[in-house]
Amino acid sequence: MDSVTVADNTEIIRRFKKVRARTEELCSPLGVEDFIPQPAVFVSPAKWHIAHTTWFFEEFVLSKFKKGYTRFHKDFAFLFNSYYNSVGERLERDNRGLLTRPRLELVFDYRKSVDQEIVSLLQNTDRQELINTIELGLQHEQQHQELLITDLKYIFSQNPIYPTYHKDYYWEKIVEPSQPDVLIEEGVYNIGYEGKDFSFDNEHGKHKVYINPVEISGNLVSNQEFIEFIESGGYDKSEFWLDEGWAFIQENSCKLPLYWKKEDGNYFQYTLNGLQEVNPKAVLMHINYFEAVAYANYKGHRLCTEFEWEVASEELNWGTVWEWTQSAYLPYPNYKKPAGAIGEYNGKFMVNQMVLRGASVATAKGHSRNTYRNFFHPQYSWQVAGIRLAKEI
Amino acid sequence: MDSVTVADNTEIIRRFKKVRARTEELCSPLGVEDFIPQPAVFVSPAKWHIAHTTWFFEEFVLSKFKKGYTRFHKDFAFLFNSYYNSVGERLERDNRGLLTRPRLELVFDYRKSVDQEIVSLLQNTDRQELINTIELGLQHEQQHQELLITDLKYIFSQNPIYPTYHKDYYWEKIVEPSQPDVLIEEGVYNIGYEGKDFSFDNEHGKHKVYINPVEISGNLVSNQEFIEFIESGGYDKSEFWLDEGWAFIQENSCKLPLYWKKEDGNYFQYTLNGLQEVNPKAVLMHINYFEAVAYANYKGHRLCTEFEWEVASEELNWGTVWEWTQSAYLPYPNYKKPAGAIGEYNGKFMVNQMVLRGASVATAKGHSRNTYRNFFHPQYSWQVAGIRLAKEI
Amino acid sequence: MDSVTVADNTEIIRRFKKVRARTEELCSPLGVEDFIPQPAVFVSPAKWHIAHTTWFFEEFVLSKFKKGYTRFHKDFAFLFNSYYNSVGERLERDNRGLLTRPRLELVFDYRKSVDQEIVSLLQNTDRQELINTIELGLQHEQQHQELLITDLKYIFSQNPIYPTYHKDYYWEKIVEPSQPDVLIEEGVYNIGYEGKDFSFDNEHGKHKVYINPVEISGNLVSNQEFIEFIESGGYDKSEFWLDEGWAFIQENSCKLPLYWKKEDGNYFQYTLNGLQEVNPKAVLMHINYFEAVAYANYKGHRLCTEFEWEVASEELNWGTVWEWTQSAYLPYPNYKKPAGAIGEYNGKFMVNQMVLRGASVATAKGHSRNTYRNFFHPQYSWQVAGIRLAKEI
Amino acid sequence: MDSVTVADNTEIIRRFKKVRARTEELCSPLGVEDFIPQPAVFVSPAKWHIAHTTWFFEEFVLSKFKKGYTRFHKDFAFLFNSYYNSVGERLERDNRGLLTRPRLELVFDYRKSVDQEIVSLLQNTDRQELINTIELGLQHEQQHQELLITDLKYIFSQNPIYPTYHKDYYWEKIVEPSQPDVLIEEGVYNIGYEGKDFSFDNEHGKHKVYINPVEISGNLVSNQEFIEFIESGGYDKSEFWLDEGWAFIQENSCKLPLYWKKEDGNYFQYTLNGLQEVNPKAVLMHINYFEAVAYANYKGHRLCTEFEWEVASEELNWGTVWEWTQSAYLPYPNYKKPAGAIGEYNGKFMVNQMVLRGASVATAKGHSRNTYRNFFHPQYSWQVAGIRLAKEI
Repeated sequence: MDSVTVADNTEIIRRFKKVRARTEELCSPLGVEDFIPQPAVFVSPAKWHIAHTTWFFEEFVLSKFKKGYTRFHKDFAFLFNSYYNSVGERLERDNRGLLTRPRLELVFDYRKSVDQEIVSLLQNTDRQELINTIELGLQHEQQHQELLITDLKYIFSQNPIYPTYHKDYYWEKIVEPSQPDVLIEEGVYNIGYEGKDFSFDNEHGKHKVYINPVEISGNLVSNQEFIEFIESGGYDKSEFWLDEGWAFIQENSCKLPLYWKKEDGNYFQYTLNGLQEVNPKAVLMHINYFEAVAYANYKGHRLCTEFEWEVASEELNWGTVWEWTQSAYLPYPNYKKPAGAIGEYNGKFMVNQMVLRGASVATAKGHSRNTYRNFFHPQYSWQVAGIRLAKEI
Repeated sequence: MDSVTVADNTEIIRRFKKVRARTEELCSPLGVEDFIPQPAVFVSPAKWHIAHTTWFFEEFVLSKFKKGYTRFHKDFAFLFNSYYNSVGERLERDNRGLLTRPRLELVFDYRKSVDQEIVSLLQNTDRQELINTIELGLQHEQQHQELLITDLKYIFSQNPIYPTYHKDYYWEKIVEPSQPDVLIEEGVYNIGYEGKDFSFDNEHGKHKVYINPVEISGNLVSNQEFIEFIESGGYDKSEFWLDEGWAFIQENSCKLPLYWKKEDGNYFQYTLNGLQEVNPKAVLMHINYFEAVAYANYKGHRLCTEFEWEVASEELNWGTVWEWTQSAYLPYPNYKKPAGAIGEYNGKFMVNQMVLRGASVATAKGHSRNTYRNFFHPQYSWQVAGIRLAKEI
Repeated sequence: MDSVTVADNTEIIRRFKKVRARTEELCSPLGVEDFIPQPAVFVSPAKWHIAHTTWFFEEFVLSKFKKGYTRFHKDFAFLFNSYYNSVGERLERDNRGLLTRPRLELVFDYRKSVDQEIVSLLQNTDRQELINTIELGLQHEQQHQELLITDLKYIFSQNPIYPTYHKDYYWEKIVEPSQPDVLIEEGVYNIGYEGKDFSFDNEHGKHKVYINPVEISGNLVSNQEFIEFIESGGYDKSEFWLDEGWAFIQENSCKLPLYWKKEDGNYFQYTLNGLQEVNPKAVLMHINYFEAVAYANYKGHRLCTEFEWEVASEELNWGTVWEWTQSAYLPYPNYKKPAGAIGEYNGKFMVNQMVLRGASVATAKGHSRNTYRNFFHPQYSWQVAGIRLAKEI
Repeated sequence: MDSVTVADNTEIIRRFKKVRARTEELCSPLGVEDFIPQPAVFVSPAKWHIAHTTWFFEEFVLSKFKKGYTRFHKDFAFLFNSYYNSVGERLERDNRGLLTRPRLELVFDYRKSVDQEIVSLLQNTDRQELINTIELGLQHEQQHQELLITDLKYIFSQNPIYPTYHKDYYWEKIVEPSQPDVLIEEGVYNIGYEGKDFSFDNEHGKHKVYINPVEISGNLVSNQEFIEFIESGGYDKSEFWLDEGWAFIQENSCKLPLYWKKEDGNYFQYTLNGLQEVNPKAVLMHINYFEAVAYANYKGHRLCTEFEWEVASEELNWGTVWEWTQSAYLPYPNYKKPAGAIGEYNGKFMVNQMVLRGASVATAKGHSRNTYRNFFHPQYSWQVAGIRLAKEI
């Protein structure tokens, strides 16, 4: 009789279960109906997130590492692949809201089945490559947890009756009492990740960057400060705006941040607890890059670069909102995309997007570090993103 | 003490309950998920149909005839009004798929509540105007029953895994053994409804029409006959097509009827029982006006006018598919739209649509007569519509 | 030696030259620049009209009737075919404004060359089929004369500096002093052309139509009357509008007829003599079908059918503006499209368009009769179209 | 009597006349027709270029520096302003092709009038600010000379008959015999302009940049090399493409560079001398950023950053084509936009565009330097842009 290898993967199994459970917990306030719609191509339905994060483990773990694995359902790879061209055909992104079937229940069965298979695999294997891929899958799942909740907020916001996701979900934080500004002296600094824990390919390639002297605000911009911008006519003054930003706000008749309404002189915002009055002292959120740049110009300042931010980060109080930087999302020197389909994870998006640094109240716990490079197109404001100013000195 | 009038509305109450129950029966094979999406602006989600038909009774019956009636929910008039400008603002038509809330359960509660109120009202009132409006509401509901099932078919068809609505729902009928053609002699004929039962405003105005001699086919076009058109290159020969039809099939790359696929030389079609092989002997359905005209030209014939159809109807075997006519949807002489919001029911749609006559396998029982004027835009084929040919003699 | 037939086509040659000269006369106020742009897909550049009407003679006359004819330029059939699928590939309609080359001069050379060839052909042939095709070409040219001038008006109107075509081109006519209304008695009437002069296929098929009693206004609607509609809030009251009309005016923010502006309480309109004050007494023009129907509903009347119009026409004073009728453009009984490419002239447009009857100040002299069926889509108002009301009695 | 200051501006006057004359020379092969169309929003008609460059002098020189100057025409500021929000309303960009009037002749009169006024002003003033603004206007004019000729190429290319601009305009250059690669050693380098001659605001702010070791190809990519990419299936392999690049080539069915056609196995390209066979040895041009990145990935290399390019530039042979860099167009440290409308010249475009370095065969003589930052959106290929590869070492 062959002896069976029993791997000691207790820790990763525990972590796997915890992260997977968190995704389901985020869905607990939802009705079946809430899992379905896709009101804009940039958001995905909750059912799709639930299934896609499961597919990720099936595709990149089970079908690679488990001999003779039979897929849960022949169509799911087609339905729940997001953007990996190298693993086959897939549903068009804007059709994710049409999937009434498979029923939600079956998607949760899929989840359970894949979870069991993964745990079983981990109990019997100790290949480092497997552990690494599981870890990537968990990081991926945590990214989708943030997308899940911000997508849900957007989806609910499109309903004229302002539904409540959960009455305790009310992100608006008070701005910390005045934090000291951070001064960076001119010189060469190291940028990029070099530790041994998990990190993404796009933060690899530790390298030197020359930084000019700059002072970075210790505080994030508050709602009150942005209201001053609004009330000074900021949305009507082309001189503050990038040309594409100006065109964007004209075409979309933007006069307020996403989710804000003004009624009888008061500002309200859609939150996951329904429509609420804007708290002037709270940190501004759901701002796009165009608005961030316009606000910085209005104040005579600018945004940080991602390099300045990384250097200053140890002295900053960050994590309430993702912070738009003035850096475009581009490869670091010596960037190498990983071999195979995983190579599509980051590198192919390096055009027309801006880097955000930090983390937000919606970010999964443990899923942040000061070298992390988040990125979105400049027009998007459905993420929990805000503004930190910098000035040259 | 006032004496309370107890109306003898037993019959209308019975009918009311039966029609309302039929709508719910049509929903019985659905999961909650299936009630939500709206993949195209011309279809509506099942939840919306369920709620809208209820709103119709609330708006036009309860709030008119029941003193002191309080609406079930303050937002439902906004959410579930279809196109009645005169009763207030409403949700934009293409946003019907975003309504995850109100939850489906609440919509069914709404239904139940309104049903009870209506029955109670009928038990206590015998105003003819009330009965008439109830009857209109039931006719309206029956129209939505047909839309509900054809919309569901379209919605399901957009899912690449071809879901099944119900295994017994398989509409494709065998073409009746050869029926005799019907000859109409030249002369003046009466057109339009003049009975005392329910009928729509658009079929009123009985009037004389002069008809030229014509022979109308006793049979509807079969799948086999349309396959011959396809295989003769019908979709590639501009000479058969109206100019806008030709443009439409180019833009949409149409080479087959909606729901059809060709694989390995065999024809399949999406049905409410999933993908099925096309039965050559069955009546062709899901054809748009452009295809109907192209087929008629290919055969050297033409479609009937709605007047010819009405005159011939007593000798025709009709009811499998709606039959496209060559008549545009226009008012009859002396057409008068009813006063108030109900005036928006029919008259304002009298441009750019073609008349269909008859009824289909999806039409509610008892909801058809030979003066009934159905109408759709020429490019639509998601209704159960087919072809009957005519020729001048 | 063969004797050469010398045909006595003096009259048709004279007419040919006169009609062709008229087209060029209409271009005489233009600069080369004015011949080029195509600001909307429904208009064509003047250069294209000039070339296309010439191509029509080359394609349907010279290449059919003249042995060994060599085309003036190998690319012109591709460039200047309008919509005849059966004579080969062609430039897409919305690309007509890109043709800087061939130079305008060459297009006029083309014109001259084809004219000479046609005259020479006529001097040597007396086949009736040739004469008939020449006549069709001249009728076609006259239709394009009207399109040429209305297209030019539209093109010029898009220029914010309101250019003048010609200072004497000022179409706005005084409404005739009150004309008597015309009463049609109930009965069967003959409709359609049956004379021996030129007529189009779409007016053939003389046939009987039953008409109900109706009274037709002797007068066209004046600017003053339409101003009353505007100032009563006509563009804001959905109850007057067809549903698609209402959607159209919302999407396009229509508050006034095409070409009208309101400044300081006064109405102005773009004319071929630049911006001019609206003359209240003049006949209203440049109205689309939606506006015509809304106006009729506002007055509690309706538009004529094309059959009523034809019957009443002998007693009407018509020819200032094309008159929108309530009839969709559909084939007459026994309509037969001509064989070959000429069969594409009319028949394939018989869907989604409304019939206009009469003629306008822009119509070529001699190019009108009371059986003539003009047709346009209901949203278009760049033609010289107006309103005549009818009422049932 | 006041003495009149006679400025000694001989040199700038000479230069002014020469640059202005060059623009007109570029127009000499054109017919009036060629000045009009705008087939895509990103190109402008030649008439507009001619007028806009003149307006620039009128707006920023004459109306600022000449007392009592009366504008040539009251509407020209509206018609010929490009994107300067701060000097007033303007024609929408996509309407530039509608301006048949003012006639071309008047635009040339405008040009002549402004030229005379400028020369007269220069003869009588010696304010340095005036000279600086004239110089900016000339640099601006030179930029438009390049746009004029590339726009004309695009406009002509849309005509199916492939017109010739001029038979001697045939840009395709032979690739220089093999040039040595350039090695940059790791370290801190100075970037940005610091001389005293004219330069743009976007190249100011000389600053230090840390560069990693890199080897830059001495040669530009040739047509032959790109044909190899094409024939290896490069346009069908998603792994080489940025995600947005892949989407772009799918949507636009790109299988070849702009202007290329493949017929019977041979490659042709539209040139200003009509359709010509592709010269395999010539430098590849009219490539967009997506194609440049895909090619670099195919070769296992990458593009230069703009900083690497600037450092290497003294050893490179550049000027045939603009070279796409891997750098997004962003502000340099301490970038300050100039006060007033001129501040809109560059800064507001710093998002979603990539930097190109060098110059091209279409660049005006004397209008290039190694700190010059050109920029375009990644999808555009109508500029004379090509590929130079780099690799890390």
